[in-house]
Amino acid sequence: MCRWAAYVGQPIFLEDIVSRPAHSLIRQSQGATRCPTPVNADGFGLAWYGERPEPGLYRDVMPAWSDPNLRSLVGQVRSGLFLAHVRASTGTATSRNNCHPFAVGRWSFMHNGQFGGYDGFRRQADALIADAQYGHRIGATDSEALFLIALGAGLDEDPKSALEIAIGRLTALARERGEAPHMRAACALSDGRRLFALRTASDEHAPSLYYRWSNSRQGFAVVSEPLEQDQADWIEVPPGSFCTFDRAQVRIEEFAPMRLTRAA
Amino acid sequence: MCRWAAYVGQPIFLEDIVSRPAHSLIRQSQGATRCPTPVNADGFGLAWYGERPEPGLYRDVMPAWSDPNLRSLVGQVRSGLFLAHVRASTGTATSRNNCHPFAVGRWSFMHNGQFGGYDGFRRQADALIADAQYGHRIGATDSEALFLIALGAGLDEDPKSALEIAIGRLTALARERGEAPHMRAACALSDGRRLFALRTASDEHAPSLYYRWSNSRQGFAVVSEPLEQDQADWIEVPPGSFCTFDRAQVRIEEFAPMRLTRAA
Amino acid sequence: MCRWAAYVGQPIFLEDIVSRPAHSLIRQSQGATRCPTPVNADGFGLAWYGERPEPGLYRDVMPAWSDPNLRSLVGQVRSGLFLAHVRASTGTATSRNNCHPFAVGRWSFMHNGQFGGYDGFRRQADALIADAQYGHRIGATDSEALFLIALGAGLDEDPKSALEIAIGRLTALARERGEAPHMRAACALSDGRRLFALRTASDEHAPSLYYRWSNSRQGFAVVSEPLEQDQADWIEVPPGSFCTFDRAQVRIEEFAPMRLTRAA
Amino acid sequence: MCRWAAYVGQPIFLEDIVSRPAHSLIRQSQGATRCPTPVNADGFGLAWYGERPEPGLYRDVMPAWSDPNLRSLVGQVRSGLFLAHVRASTGTATSRNNCHPFAVGRWSFMHNGQFGGYDGFRRQADALIADAQYGHRIGATDSEALFLIALGAGLDEDPKSALEIAIGRLTALARERGEAPHMRAACALSDGRRLFALRTASDEHAPSLYYRWSNSRQGFAVVSEPLEQDQADWIEVPPGSFCTFDRAQVRIEEFAPMRLTRAA
Repeated sequence: MCRWAAYVGQPIFLEDIVSRPAHSLIRQSQGATRCPTPVNADGFGLAWYGERPEPGLYRDVMPAWSDPNLRSLVGQVRSGLFLAHVRASTGTATSRNNCHPFAVGRWSFMHNGQFGGYDGFRRQADALIADAQYGHRIGATDSEALFLIALGAGLDEDPKSALEIAIGRLTALARERGEAPHMRAACALSDGRRLFALRTASDEHAPSLYYRWSNSRQGFAVVSEPLEQDQADWIEVPPGSFCTFDRAQVRIEEFAPMRLTRAA
Repeated sequence: MCRWAAYVGQPIFLEDIVSRPAHSLIRQSQGATRCPTPVNADGFGLAWYGERPEPGLYRDVMPAWSDPNLRSLVGQVRSGLFLAHVRASTGTATSRNNCHPFAVGRWSFMHNGQFGGYDGFRRQADALIADAQYGHRIGATDSEALFLIALGAGLDEDPKSALEIAIGRLTALARERGEAPHMRAACALSDGRRLFALRTASDEHAPSLYYRWSNSRQGFAVVSEPLEQDQADWIEVPPGSFCTFDRAQVRIEEFAPMRLTRAA
Repeated sequence: MCRWAAYVGQPIFLEDIVSRPAHSLIRQSQGATRCPTPVNADGFGLAWYGERPEPGLYRDVMPAWSDPNLRSLVGQVRSGLFLAHVRASTGTATSRNNCHPFAVGRWSFMHNGQFGGYDGFRRQADALIADAQYGHRIGATDSEALFLIALGAGLDEDPKSALEIAIGRLTALARERGEAPHMRAACALSDGRRLFALRTASDEHAPSLYYRWSNSRQGFAVVSEPLEQDQADWIEVPPGSFCTFDRAQVRIEEFAPMRLTRAA
Repeated sequence: MCRWAAYVGQPIFLEDIVSRPAHSLIRQSQGATRCPTPVNADGFGLAWYGERPEPGLYRDVMPAWSDPNLRSLVGQVRSGLFLAHVRASTGTATSRNNCHPFAVGRWSFMHNGQFGGYDGFRRQADALIADAQYGHRIGATDSEALFLIALGAGLDEDPKSALEIAIGRLTALARERGEAPHMRAACALSDGRRLFALRTASDEHAPSLYYRWSNSRQGFAVVSEPLEQDQADWIEVPPGSFCTFDRAQVRIEEFAPMRLTRAA
């Protein structure tokens, strides 16, 4: 399990989410309270949007709390749309290429969760990645595969539908060749304009997902765990939901991964 | 292009090949003389055999000349069979998982060369890796793919034939979907008992390959470039050769990658 | 606080201490039970003695549990005398140069503990390092300073006395310019022949220290925390002790840091 | 020797200096033409000023050309005042803490050159750093020492004079305890408002230094080597000069390191 936080709204310093809150993402990397792996020290990453359509990307393999570059960056860079992630490996080697977020073109993507028994069907999972996206396959995680499959399934046109297809396909592989629990996912992604988030699982244990509108910042924070314990107004997203954060509005739709009899 | 050196014989300190000779592998990483990329600073690696059937593996992304761990290791570890590599990336990201040598079970493998236009057919190359080996696919290089395809093609039973098949398949992909030059390769590999090396290319420019028997060490050094400029007795391996170094003997056979009309 | 383990006896694979026991050093890096910082993920290090008088040294800044080089190394290297350390930074930047063990000539040294308010008297601490050792000052920790001061105070001739002087001087600085608790230390060190360990503090809270003789291995393990919870025969070293492990024998002497009215 | 480039003027993307020009800083890291060490692959760094008085700082130990974080950062961040550096170690270990630029408060500093025989008088050099700055001494380079000594000698009030004192003191140490050439330096530094640069040496071989005003950018580039070979309007700064770049103006004064009979 990993922890992540994302933001869309008026530009703020990244540190306002990543390191300054009492239960900031960096604090969560040292002691998460709502997930089975309290320490998330197997790398971290940031994707932020600024003056260009493509996001900036900064990822490294150290624990987030000990990287002076990260500390400096989040104190300098101001952005109105960004994703941040701390990783607890579920087996795949620690490598920058396996750190979230992943970015292709104007899209960025991060993920908390897993497909059960993924190591046993990596070959089949890779085969679901389209030719056009295969050049972006540089790591070995299920998360990167999910992102690239979704890109090939029309993420540009219809993000919710593309992810229902991509998650559906990988879940079918997990059912066919993997193990239970077959799928658990909380994802955040962005095209540089809107922030999307989803919460889903093949069982009763979808990873936690919350959001909160801040009047002072005029923005949404979307997170694995509330950033301040004493803020009562964090809203829990129910399992099976797809959220679209667009300026000051959020739309929540049902999210139902495509059910397939066969994966391929 | 990369530079590499391997050794089989009476145990010596790794530094006797890696860092002490006048034109040692580390010196070559700073200024190779027989290849188009004089600086090989995009990572390095060591595989050595000791008391276990599987090799030890040490790889990192720094230039070899600046890593104090490497300097310490090669000064402490003595081995009768080892492979060492310095990398000049031909495009793939610098990452430990993309550094040579690669190791699976008792096998280790390293490679200098390329398959032309590999980025354009990575998906098809990965598809040639068998299920049993796919779990070892953690990087994104053509070299790792070649090794894993060869393992699936019977490396254990007949190394020369397995590599003729694997190189043949990837060369066919390069002809079909890539670009010229389609294939150039100088590889070294070991099963923990014998050291194998090959030199081949689809054109007239096979990467350089030399070996030398040392009476004082009672061992063979096999290298991209001679380790001492003033030693006249380095023997150049002709293109189209497969060498088996077994104790004090070397056998050189013709190496002819399988010609395929279609890659898959 | 950090965690460490050392061994002297018949050669064993490093993994027999570092990664295989139920409560191995790597396990302790993820969840130590007898210290206030359960996660020790700010780097690690190994010093081992083999065929040379000087130790091999391997240190890196990742968490110990996620470094494939470390895993490979401890599975390959066999040694009859080694030190291993996992670090939880008490403030100093994560850097290979700040990772333990430190090594100079044939000596290696590692430390768990601190001198209170060290950041406020680093300049004075450095000034206690002798000219002959100053070239080895490449990091910024109190631990490295302690080691180098001890070397200048006669570590070669009388290790106990040299450490009583060195710890005494730094403790005097902490009293003069730092803060309480002024000193807590559990150290291990070796000259390549014997293994030394000490436990001391300026208050009632000396860091934990245990040792155990293994008949099957014919060796001593000396540790911050017992490596197996169900082994009843770990012996706790009392505060104010200096231990010398020499082959199958241990000698325990009183350790009393020199009391100085002024540090410099 | 190292290579560096700095900029002050209308905000530009860092990549306009760091990676896009034909002879950009990253190109220079692979093949500098005007210095004795053509490869500068022992780390790199950036300091840039944005919305805060303190600079952002990004440094790492890889070759600059192979770091995807660097590539992303320089393509995203726009700044009107920044310093960039690629390092060829003159002996000191490769470590983030030894990479330039260094930053303390609102100041940033970088350096190309050396004090002759520095390893032999590091202890005396450190002793010249004032108490107030000593806490910022986290590496082991002469460059960091020079910066901290200058801060203690009044960099805030009079940068030229502070550097004449600091360089004078270290040069005196080199004369007393080091070796010839005693001092060579090309430095750039900034307080977040103005950009300063100096060129000096104790012999005839001061490191190269150039600047150029760009009308299209409305800014000054100050560099070790011209960024475009075909631009004829790079102005070489004569040895013994201190330059102050303040908006669209440059003032060049004589720079004469203080001559001291004794260093301390």
